[in-house]
Amino acid sequence: MVFERKPLADCVPALVATARGDMPATLVITGGKLVNVCSGEILDGMSVGIQEGRIAYVGKDVSHMIGENTKVVDAAGKYIAPGLLDGHCHIESTQLTVTEFARAVLPLGTTGGFFDAHEIANVFGLKGIKLMLDEMRTTPLAAYMQVASCVPSAGPEFETTGAAIGPEEVAEAFTWGDDVIALGEVMNFPGVVYGDDKMLGEIQATLRAGGQVDGHFTWPASDWRLPVYAAAGVTGDHECVTAEDVIERVRLGMYAKMRRGSAWHDVAKTITAHTEHGLDPRRMMLVTDDRSSESLRDEGHMDFVVRHAIAQGVKPVTAFQMATINTAERFGVARDIGSITPGNIADIILLDGNLADVNVVMTIAAGTVVAENGVMTVSLPSFAYPQEVLSSVHLPKRPTAADFIIKAPVESGNVSTRVIKVLENHVETMERILSLPVLEGKLQVGDELCKIAVLERHKGTGNISVGVVEGVGFHEPAAIAMTVAHDSHNVLVIGSDDELMAVAVNAVADAQGGVAVITGAGTTLFPLAIAGLMSAEPFEVAAAQSAAISKALYNAGCTLNYAFMTLSLLALAVIPTLRLSDKGLVRITPEDGIQLVPLFCGESINATV
Amino acid sequence: MVFERKPLADCVPALVATARGDMPATLVITGGKLVNVCSGEILDGMSVGIQEGRIAYVGKDVSHMIGENTKVVDAAGKYIAPGLLDGHCHIESTQLTVTEFARAVLPLGTTGGFFDAHEIANVFGLKGIKLMLDEMRTTPLAAYMQVASCVPSAGPEFETTGAAIGPEEVAEAFTWGDDVIALGEVMNFPGVVYGDDKMLGEIQATLRAGGQVDGHFTWPASDWRLPVYAAAGVTGDHECVTAEDVIERVRLGMYAKMRRGSAWHDVAKTITAHTEHGLDPRRMMLVTDDRSSESLRDEGHMDFVVRHAIAQGVKPVTAFQMATINTAERFGVARDIGSITPGNIADIILLDGNLADVNVVMTIAAGTVVAENGVMTVSLPSFAYPQEVLSSVHLPKRPTAADFIIKAPVESGNVSTRVIKVLENHVETMERILSLPVLEGKLQVGDELCKIAVLERHKGTGNISVGVVEGVGFHEPAAIAMTVAHDSHNVLVIGSDDELMAVAVNAVADAQGGVAVITGAGTTLFPLAIAGLMSAEPFEVAAAQSAAISKALYNAGCTLNYAFMTLSLLALAVIPTLRLSDKGLVRITPEDGIQLVPLFCGESINATV
Repeated sequence: MVFERKPLADCVPALVATARGDMPATLVITGGKLVNVCSGEILDGMSVGIQEGRIAYVGKDVSHMIGENTKVVDAAGKYIAPGLLDGHCHIESTQLTVTEFARAVLPLGTTGGFFDAHEIANVFGLKGIKLMLDEMRTTPLAAYMQVASCVPSAGPEFETTGAAIGPEEVAEAFTWGDDVIALGEVMNFPGVVYGDDKMLGEIQATLRAGGQVDGHFTWPASDWRLPVYAAAGVTGDHECVTAEDVIERVRLGMYAKMRRGSAWHDVAKTITAHTEHGLDPRRMMLVTDDRSSESLRDEGHMDFVVRHAIAQGVKPVTAFQMATINTAERFGVARDIGSITPGNIADIILLDGNLADVNVVMTIAAGTVVAENGVMTVSLPSFAYPQEVLSSVHLPKRPTAADFIIKAPVESGNVSTRVIKVLENHVETMERILSLPVLEGKLQVGDELCKIAVLERHKGTGNISVGVVEGVGFHEPAAIAMTVAHDSHNVLVIGSDDELMAVAVNAVADAQGGVAVITGAGTTLFPLAIAGLMSAEPFEVAAAQSAAISKALYNAGCTLNYAFMTLSLLALAVIPTLRLSDKGLVRITPEDGIQLVPLFCGESINATV
Repeated sequence: MVFERKPLADCVPALVATARGDMPATLVITGGKLVNVCSGEILDGMSVGIQEGRIAYVGKDVSHMIGENTKVVDAAGKYIAPGLLDGHCHIESTQLTVTEFARAVLPLGTTGGFFDAHEIANVFGLKGIKLMLDEMRTTPLAAYMQVASCVPSAGPEFETTGAAIGPEEVAEAFTWGDDVIALGEVMNFPGVVYGDDKMLGEIQATLRAGGQVDGHFTWPASDWRLPVYAAAGVTGDHECVTAEDVIERVRLGMYAKMRRGSAWHDVAKTITAHTEHGLDPRRMMLVTDDRSSESLRDEGHMDFVVRHAIAQGVKPVTAFQMATINTAERFGVARDIGSITPGNIADIILLDGNLADVNVVMTIAAGTVVAENGVMTVSLPSFAYPQEVLSSVHLPKRPTAADFIIKAPVESGNVSTRVIKVLENHVETMERILSLPVLEGKLQVGDELCKIAVLERHKGTGNISVGVVEGVGFHEPAAIAMTVAHDSHNVLVIGSDDELMAVAVNAVADAQGGVAVITGAGTTLFPLAIAGLMSAEPFEVAAAQSAAISKALYNAGCTLNYAFMTLSLLALAVIPTLRLSDKGLVRITPEDGIQLVPLFCGESINATV
């Protein structure tokens, strides 16, 4: 293995020998300001000695372990902090391979994460998860896999996915190694609460394997069923949007994950659980969930989230705890990562300026300097995905504009229509009931609205559903198609023009995956060849292509923050309130759970569904 | 099993069904003030529902899970807190069997502990540990075993023990079950620091089995070798006597255990790490280490320690954290015990008065009410030890007064003599060099000093060593003999009269173990038939016998606090500064480590040692 992380037991004799000065350290860091996340202190004049990729010594003086071949890093004037950990992250949301993700985030100070590959799982099932795990193992990251729990996210009656995962698959994944650590966010929380066998079976398989169970509960924190969900063994949850969401979860023994994704800006509110309500922060964590490659480039990764948390009034060392030791403790790996203490793996960052600046100038992963001043200093091996994964878009025919016509139940007049309303910077959508005109039996969506359609791409069923969406903002004929469409990742297309919608879909189908924006200005394509989710290009190229998509959308009038990511969630059939799958409109509410609903109010759902 | 603790995975469906109201709870607790150790809050009006011995629900309302057979406990006006956990405890120090220990501490609110059976291990090795583990499993306690690491504590060159434990034995112990959780206090810290194969091998075996390693480091916290010790993987330590001891350990990633044993009064000083120095308390724990049966009866157990910590100025909920969730997290079992959260085992106590009073009025263990108002409400099964364990005192001959004569290197005059000085309420001893008179070649110890002797009792070697001790306080002819003599538990005898010393030794030998005080007033015997360490009697009887020993010592002038326990440590050949083993005087210092030293200064140690 290129960046080996040996078990502590194997390293004990060498660590002790190094610490007492009988074996030269491979690397020492001298005289910096140690961010001690165990004691909650900043200690000046501290040095660190490293051996076998682990921390052999932390103290005032490491001169006794410096030999001829010991690399010495002078940290005078700098902070020495544990590498940042992302406690809930979907790498696929960056549209990068794991290797390119690592190249992007290591210079920013992220040295580890708990990744839920549930996007590729929806396309290729366990095989997809195992491929990403294999790639993780080639990087310098302390990368842990969470097994996707909800594939499909809401049951096959609501959507068509490329694969399915159940209790047996979960149990199998846990045999792959200790880096398979948890069950990924259990989005089907109503299933858990109401005793669904598959969901409880997956949780039981996880607990029997010694894994943790991560949650995803979007009903209000005051709902009496949050404790029911907790009783199933769910001990972490990132669906916190208010201080109360954080407080209630922590009270129930969960770790509350506070999210700052590209498009989900929850930290400013959720952090007040600590800054205003005084909650003990030991079970509060900072996470990204979903960040685009351009936001990695332009804002950052966990460094950005920690900086943002501090800017809300959290003491810097507390914010670091929320992105290091709390996260490691949540997953039971605090003896390997999350603090700069003897025995732990040497995942260490150096920072300049004030600690609150979170200005990372050096990243050490497993005892090796991997990045300096924002640039990788080591090259990472490349990882090849099999051909099957590179051709994952299966449409039985090329769609045309006619496929996007919505037939109304009347020939003319107005019909009461369910419309998906996009909410900027929020995962949730709203359900709106609008009276829309009908011409010659065809629904007219007008200039303020767009059509939205989902085309099944995994099994060649030919399923196409079409609906209406508000809040996209196109002020000219435009369309965007994408093979990233959470969670089933069918082809999602949104447009103000049926012709352009067809062009957009065919563009991504021809590319075997990607995002295409079609406007009067032409076609902007972000190819995503790997499972239709991830770019085969280096981080910098992918980020530029992602930015081009954003720009094209913006120019066409779609000014939503991280518009592509927000739009790609419109097919996510488990988060309130109204979504579109290849099987039609899906409505999710605390009262009624998940149900298919007709586009036109008063109609009933087709019996064949 | 009588008090079954089923794995969470097996309980998930029933817990969820109960929580949502589809299955009646076995027990509910209604409307109390919940001590929430996760959030650090006290929440009024909270109820708890229980099923399968675990917590199914925590919330405002449990009326939907109350059925015909549901036991309802009204907690109005009372606190509902997690059962207290003892994070470092030697049950043998109470001189009680595990069953009687459980009977003693459950009414006091202790529902679990991390026990290091290293006393019986020194007598019977792994077999002794397994017997105590088997007995633990019959009690309602959440009882976890730490494998004794230092048997013998300081190497066979320094003392004779009944058994030896090494890396293979440690590995074997970890195959017994998940309740074997850690390596017990690694007292041979110099061995660890200087790379002793046996000590590192035991640590490696523990880490490979997924266990934690507990420490015991008595050099000053400022010693540069504390981080060396930590590098071996040691992550908890109870040898904290100053605030600095706590702070330095926590900085190095350890859990700092603050001890209030019968005779070790460390909390008042160590707790200032938090109350004065502001250390994050998440890695601070309260423990008992060693408490006598009389101190359990007269002061209490963890309830007493928590009350005492609060009296030093710790916020009550923080003190509870130090005896519940912090302890559970340290050992990686916070998903089973240590908090009142859904899914956890229902180890719960109810308290009256103010929380700071720590006045336990009900104890629930694994969902069953086991004690109320200080009295057990269930009977515990009895546990039978094999005959071999009941006859463990093997002296090749009955000693006489002549065996306690100390021959001086001169016929008359004075000799410079090493004297062990007892320090009240401290584990450490001092080395004193006194000029003592010699008459007819025999050392005279006078009225202010006593003789101390150790007689090997495991292997019938006939080893007897004799030394001098200061600070015992006998003001009349008196002697105390005991088969509890840490750690090798040979026969230790201390007296101001050689004849009475012989009588005392023969009394405990005849009883096959125990403590005997012989004075002019007669013989006071506390029989300890089980391995010479534990009483076969019920808690109440043993406590009375223990108290009688204390009283007899006091009447004879030995007014040391918990004198018996303090004296029983005088043979502990790993804690500074001067001790006596069956092989002679042992001197322990940070500079020189452990060494045998001659009684008379200027002499050299016999070459046969």
